[in-house]
Amino acid sequence: MPSPIEFYFDYSSPYGYFGAMKIDELAARHGREVSWKPILLGAVFKVTGARPLPSLPLKGDYARRDIERSARFHAIPIRHPSKFPIATQAPARAFYWLSDRDPAQARQLAKSLFKAYFIDDRDISTPDVTADVASEMGLARDEVLAAISDPAVKERLRHETDAAIKLGVFGSPYVVIDGEPFWGVDRFDQIERWLGQGKF
Amino acid sequence: MPSPIEFYFDYSSPYGYFGAMKIDELAARHGREVSWKPILLGAVFKVTGARPLPSLPLKGDYARRDIERSARFHAIPIRHPSKFPIATQAPARAFYWLSDRDPAQARQLAKSLFKAYFIDDRDISTPDVTADVASEMGLARDEVLAAISDPAVKERLRHETDAAIKLGVFGSPYVVIDGEPFWGVDRFDQIERWLGQGKF
Repeated sequence: MPSPIEFYFDYSSPYGYFGAMKIDELAARHGREVSWKPILLGAVFKVTGARPLPSLPLKGDYARRDIERSARFHAIPIRHPSKFPIATQAPARAFYWLSDRDPAQARQLAKSLFKAYFIDDRDISTPDVTADVASEMGLARDEVLAAISDPAVKERLRHETDAAIKLGVFGSPYVVIDGEPFWGVDRFDQIERWLGQGKF
Repeated sequence: MPSPIEFYFDYSSPYGYFGAMKIDELAARHGREVSWKPILLGAVFKVTGARPLPSLPLKGDYARRDIERSARFHAIPIRHPSKFPIATQAPARAFYWLSDRDPAQARQLAKSLFKAYFIDDRDISTPDVTADVASEMGLARDEVLAAISDPAVKERLRHETDAAIKLGVFGSPYVVIDGEPFWGVDRFDQIERWLGQGKF
């Protein structure tokens, strides 16, 4: 049994959202599981010196256009959120809390949170909205809110983000397959070949 | 007759090199010409605050690996140059000088310069090596050297780079089709659809 594909992402990343809509199906076509790993790009950027896309001269304007065109290219709906980027501690903590109990349901929650932010323009940076999205899936709202403020869950997210940085993760989405790193949804064509035909 | 596709690149950019090996054929499949436009990313980065890939924490290491894997993916030969990145005034000036006399031959020169740098590890940042590469195509070495130090040609390159920045060009390769910008060789799949099926 091959080890799972690692899928690193930040909930505030539009390209992470595109990746999230595609990675499970891509992996399944090649008999692989996916281990989802939300991280905090803000912490990563402190190490790399990178800045959020909207703050970058020229590239920021391009990114806005590229995100909308890429959504059409991949046939994934998107509505540019009115608040962008956002802090993503709340949804990331909710994910890890649920992931330890039910990884499949946690992946479902991850997708629902992405859609809430990138389709319905809901501000998932707030614990309340993250808990709302979880409760719409049948999870207990109070338990989700408790998890988001639980010191152990906070520490878990810090640990996952630090481990990702140690591994070299610097952006979202970032996929690792048997040690080979792929950055960006625009490397999914290379991932497809790597999984289908092996190392190249 | 549709207007030419604009292809902006820096001779020191590996992804620009990949783009250069593909853009003419891609455009020709859709009945389009390509206007090649070498620019100086160093001048662009002064505006955007971006830095060369090798200097970026985490991303620099990834880029080295991604460049070599992407070369294999696209079946384009590459040998990582021993000096990287380099200043590209000499090859860019030689290009514009020739382009005014013979655009088709200038495109040939552009490809030869890219191959000299990225396959044969020749340091095309020096006027001598750029002139050598041009003379191997039958151009007069002395004329090329004179062009590289000609104030009017220097001014031409400055003007082209400034105009590119005004247009929003922030990286290499950067392709503009009827006003629509595409950054990176990993957008060539979107370019293919745009040219084949029209705006999406």
